[in-house]
Amino acid sequence: MATRTVDFRSDTVTKPSEAMRAAMARAEVDDDVIGHDPTAFKLEAEMAKIMGKEAALFVPSCTMANLISVLVHCDVRGSEVIVGDTSHIHIYENGGIATLGGVHPRTVRSNEDGTMDIDLIEAAIRDPKGELVYPTTRLICLENTHVHSGGRCISVEYTDKVGEVAKKHGLKLHIDGARIFNASVALGVPVDRLVKAADSVSVCLSKGLGAPVGSVIVGSNSFITKARRLRKTLGGGMRQVGILCAAALVALQENVAKLESDHKKAKLLADGLNEIKGLRVDTSSVETNIIYLHIEEGSGISAGKLCKDLEEYGILLMAMGSSRLRIVFHHHISSSDVQYALSCFQLAVNNGAKNENGN
Amino acid sequence: MATRTVDFRSDTVTKPSEAMRAAMARAEVDDDVIGHDPTAFKLEAEMAKIMGKEAALFVPSCTMANLISVLVHCDVRGSEVIVGDTSHIHIYENGGIATLGGVHPRTVRSNEDGTMDIDLIEAAIRDPKGELVYPTTRLICLENTHVHSGGRCISVEYTDKVGEVAKKHGLKLHIDGARIFNASVALGVPVDRLVKAADSVSVCLSKGLGAPVGSVIVGSNSFITKARRLRKTLGGGMRQVGILCAAALVALQENVAKLESDHKKAKLLADGLNEIKGLRVDTSSVETNIIYLHIEEGSGISAGKLCKDLEEYGILLMAMGSSRLRIVFHHHISSSDVQYALSCFQLAVNNGAKNENGN
Amino acid sequence: MATRTVDFRSDTVTKPSEAMRAAMARAEVDDDVIGHDPTAFKLEAEMAKIMGKEAALFVPSCTMANLISVLVHCDVRGSEVIVGDTSHIHIYENGGIATLGGVHPRTVRSNEDGTMDIDLIEAAIRDPKGELVYPTTRLICLENTHVHSGGRCISVEYTDKVGEVAKKHGLKLHIDGARIFNASVALGVPVDRLVKAADSVSVCLSKGLGAPVGSVIVGSNSFITKARRLRKTLGGGMRQVGILCAAALVALQENVAKLESDHKKAKLLADGLNEIKGLRVDTSSVETNIIYLHIEEGSGISAGKLCKDLEEYGILLMAMGSSRLRIVFHHHISSSDVQYALSCFQLAVNNGAKNENGN
Amino acid sequence: MATRTVDFRSDTVTKPSEAMRAAMARAEVDDDVIGHDPTAFKLEAEMAKIMGKEAALFVPSCTMANLISVLVHCDVRGSEVIVGDTSHIHIYENGGIATLGGVHPRTVRSNEDGTMDIDLIEAAIRDPKGELVYPTTRLICLENTHVHSGGRCISVEYTDKVGEVAKKHGLKLHIDGARIFNASVALGVPVDRLVKAADSVSVCLSKGLGAPVGSVIVGSNSFITKARRLRKTLGGGMRQVGILCAAALVALQENVAKLESDHKKAKLLADGLNEIKGLRVDTSSVETNIIYLHIEEGSGISAGKLCKDLEEYGILLMAMGSSRLRIVFHHHISSSDVQYALSCFQLAVNNGAKNENGN
Repeated sequence: MATRTVDFRSDTVTKPSEAMRAAMARAEVDDDVIGHDPTAFKLEAEMAKIMGKEAALFVPSCTMANLISVLVHCDVRGSEVIVGDTSHIHIYENGGIATLGGVHPRTVRSNEDGTMDIDLIEAAIRDPKGELVYPTTRLICLENTHVHSGGRCISVEYTDKVGEVAKKHGLKLHIDGARIFNASVALGVPVDRLVKAADSVSVCLSKGLGAPVGSVIVGSNSFITKARRLRKTLGGGMRQVGILCAAALVALQENVAKLESDHKKAKLLADGLNEIKGLRVDTSSVETNIIYLHIEEGSGISAGKLCKDLEEYGILLMAMGSSRLRIVFHHHISSSDVQYALSCFQLAVNNGAKNENGN
Repeated sequence: MATRTVDFRSDTVTKPSEAMRAAMARAEVDDDVIGHDPTAFKLEAEMAKIMGKEAALFVPSCTMANLISVLVHCDVRGSEVIVGDTSHIHIYENGGIATLGGVHPRTVRSNEDGTMDIDLIEAAIRDPKGELVYPTTRLICLENTHVHSGGRCISVEYTDKVGEVAKKHGLKLHIDGARIFNASVALGVPVDRLVKAADSVSVCLSKGLGAPVGSVIVGSNSFITKARRLRKTLGGGMRQVGILCAAALVALQENVAKLESDHKKAKLLADGLNEIKGLRVDTSSVETNIIYLHIEEGSGISAGKLCKDLEEYGILLMAMGSSRLRIVFHHHISSSDVQYALSCFQLAVNNGAKNENGN
Repeated sequence: MATRTVDFRSDTVTKPSEAMRAAMARAEVDDDVIGHDPTAFKLEAEMAKIMGKEAALFVPSCTMANLISVLVHCDVRGSEVIVGDTSHIHIYENGGIATLGGVHPRTVRSNEDGTMDIDLIEAAIRDPKGELVYPTTRLICLENTHVHSGGRCISVEYTDKVGEVAKKHGLKLHIDGARIFNASVALGVPVDRLVKAADSVSVCLSKGLGAPVGSVIVGSNSFITKARRLRKTLGGGMRQVGILCAAALVALQENVAKLESDHKKAKLLADGLNEIKGLRVDTSSVETNIIYLHIEEGSGISAGKLCKDLEEYGILLMAMGSSRLRIVFHHHISSSDVQYALSCFQLAVNNGAKNENGN
Repeated sequence: MATRTVDFRSDTVTKPSEAMRAAMARAEVDDDVIGHDPTAFKLEAEMAKIMGKEAALFVPSCTMANLISVLVHCDVRGSEVIVGDTSHIHIYENGGIATLGGVHPRTVRSNEDGTMDIDLIEAAIRDPKGELVYPTTRLICLENTHVHSGGRCISVEYTDKVGEVAKKHGLKLHIDGARIFNASVALGVPVDRLVKAADSVSVCLSKGLGAPVGSVIVGSNSFITKARRLRKTLGGGMRQVGILCAAALVALQENVAKLESDHKKAKLLADGLNEIKGLRVDTSSVETNIIYLHIEEGSGISAGKLCKDLEEYGILLMAMGSSRLRIVFHHHISSSDVQYALSCFQLAVNNGAKNENGN
């Protein structure tokens, strides 16, 4: 059993800081279903302001944030949403928008950088004249940063352009901004500017920001009113939720500033891993806190085995198929952890290679 | 502005105790989506044991607990659930089982005591031979205590009988046990015995039990595995949720024992209100912590006005239509509050009557 | 094997007349999905005119007519429809509005005459102020004639009153008029007047009217445009559908006038059956073409056995549970069939009684 | 106004032959909802035999055939179906599987020949271990011939391979065989062999086969039993439907043999159009009865205008976007029509070019 643990599985694994625990212990709370919990109210006001939108709503998870957002924009039967074919909403959220909401997803090919070609988006928008056989396009979804491409950032220029397309066709634009603060920091663009073109944004507070639980949806007042109702339908309305919101308020204070350092450490590890024979990282694609590590063909290493071997050194990460691993940074990971991890990877690869030769 | 507040609106308004806050501040937590948060694990194990079922799952609300339970039992398209026509699931949960889950509710008339006639339940079960035009009955739902009838208790004998009907027809039985501990205490029947016939039970921890947030579903291992998946689809999977579960564990320790006292105080207030001219309570129906207060015809009092007048004395309650008010007890309400409330009701009625005469 | 058959199972069993067959054989047709089939166009125009509405749409069945109507009126997620608890839509259509459309049915008790109490309807309409926990009421459905009550007629006065309630609350009114022509004839009220208060009406052409296949929905132009689109989604758009519409046009010519005679014969049989010891018909409730025949307790007759015994004489009918049978008239049944049927009933009851005594 | 009409818009525009009309006029019919219409029974038995499956079901349209098939295979909430991103089911059926059935479509890129790469299909199948965030893959859909690629045929070898993939992963295979007879004829493979690997097949009778209305689903007995029930739920159950089935039986006799000639004429027109300056047809892709005609860049011709100009000569076809037109053959189109059409295209292009020059 390893005496040291470095948990690269996800930035959702962070544990609340002492300040968060103290804030939770003394949080002013009230029934947020009958009325409005004062701490939830404060967090929602704060988030609306930061994101540059009229209103905000605290929800238990970013999956619910996206689900509510898509369903509110697509509240009429027969709606279609344009999503990237590798987007989190399409791939990792149980197909909830169709399963629970009956919303038809129309996929557009995601590029390696997480964008979709603008002309493919436009081509996917249904001609209302064909409504006899077509659903009605009502929404375009972007994801920033884009997790499946390794946490790549979507630029403000691109976002604005998609916003224009949406407006031109009378559509809404939703941004799955689970890691929008990572994008803001990496791009050097204020987060409200980055999402200016969006009608709604989901923001996760329990990923890089390190709050124990919760996400926030932001949008117009009327959008948030509908979202609040749908949150109740889904069972996401919580009573003295100020407990969780108090931690989230601390997270906003404490951890936004730490994201830049997460990105630097990710770059450091990426560079180091790329030096190890048999491993490969497209270092130019490491823009934020996520690394996709590729195992070179013919190296005789399997992702599953590498993952398991590293676990013995206390290095936790996720295998994605047989030749790819995902490494995610967060504020619990120090520079020294990076050095330790690098040496463990080197050891595991050496041993792994030996094992393979032995077979 | 009143200097004293007695909040009878709901038992969801309770605020966490110092012990709960302390427990939240020091709770051991982990990512409950990737793996299992240790405190959530502990609460779920504890609740499964208390309720006499194999497994349990923590969810953000009792609405989600019911929604998940109905949808898991009715996971095949074309399912029908038998519910009371005044049940919480049918009336107060946004129609979520149909809206989100496509489950068809078949209503059976609720009696004044919260039960449905057994023969009406049996008559509502669809004959599989008629499946060309009928949905397939898959589930019967009971509610204990039954909120719409004023918190009345469903007996263990009745529950067992419905369980037998369900078994005979190959159906499942779900109990919306948001206030099942109130029923257990009032009936003097251990809670696991009370729900023995049920395949699943929803239990609310943030009503009489006073935890800040959350409910628990209990059932078989395979049922809870499906429930966990659907919780993720709905967006109810939370990360370091042990924070909330820590408070819930304290709630179980601290507050189950207090329910009996809540019931006694409710009885006391009910008796007192019944003495006030123009007001009427069916005191025999006050079995637990809820009072339905009726305004007598010709009394010249309106529920809305009475509610508003009482608010000026700091007495908060809910008007249900024009001649009925709902009063709910919880552990924040003391015997002295009961006396204070009684005097306020008397005052308000007196003044209210005067006002009416003045018009 | 009987040499004579009298088929009382349903008025859907009628077979097309020679005139209908000739009309089908020479019908002018075109692609009704790409464009508009001329004979479908003619039928739809004719039905719109007869029913006093702007537009009409031919659909394969009355189940689809009702499904489309409810779903078009309730096209926003979170809608609720008020239906009678014994209405055809609620009981006999597979729960399709919830299963496929996610529409939540709110049942109001059906009276013996097929109406619902107006004040119960009003009480069931959701207060928009409670929308956090309530679905949104969008539609009221009536059924005329009301099949579960034995084909009873809903009066124009009652319909108008419900229409006023709907209007007052901003709701729509749909009439399941599968047998609306029977009601019109029995009440002596022109069919357009009878449905004047309705926003949409389903009319079946293959019940009493005797067309081989199809129903029609009528409503406003914008409603029918939406209905046409949803018909395509459901797969109810048919190509050279004029074949069927040609028969329906003949049915309108030939058979509306025959309904009165159907009703008279039904009354005749009802009176006769009521004379048979052990059988009972509430003859005052036989307003149109349907008889519910009750078997008296203690008579030793079972509905299933009676049904089977009658089959040997060529008398076909449907048992509804153990002591009730349904008899439906249509234009294939002659006065002589009524006499023959009466004698068969008498024989079967006599023999049935003997058999029972023998056991 | 043209005196001659050649309708290339779709093979759905065909009108019933005299033999079909005669068959409809004398068809033996009965109530196909209460029982089984004898002519429907005959058609269904015949189709099951032809397609080599246990059972068959007549439905109003191929859209309903596909909708029912997908929903029956995916009858459990949380199902996902793998479909080509240009498949008819995904693009042209209103998103019905999601809108009405809550089934989540997972798109795989369609190749130009209508296939999807086998390894992309396998990659799209969800790992059951990831079920916390993944829907459950239950079905793969193929389309043969594939309309969006211009009626290209899917080979029996490819179909078998996909069938093996499906079997290996415990999935079902559905073939949207709206034009499966065209594929069978063009490939020279008996139709039952062509669909051997499929669990269900939709076959349209009102396209190339020329019946006025209807499609058939074939599959196992248990599948068809479920399909029959869902057909009722959708409102696709029809009463004396033998009328339509009688025409379909004639269509099977008369028109399968004509498909080869349709394909030859299509090839002929394709070759001719390819000679016209400014127009281009990938003649090698014209495998059956559909031509996609491309307008060359810089030719100064717009698809919309060409379409409109041709209409004046009685040549009807469909513009697909600004530089592509769809031409579909069926048995109403003669060799002489092909020559006439070619001369009209030449005229329209000449005039169109002149007009453009004049601007």
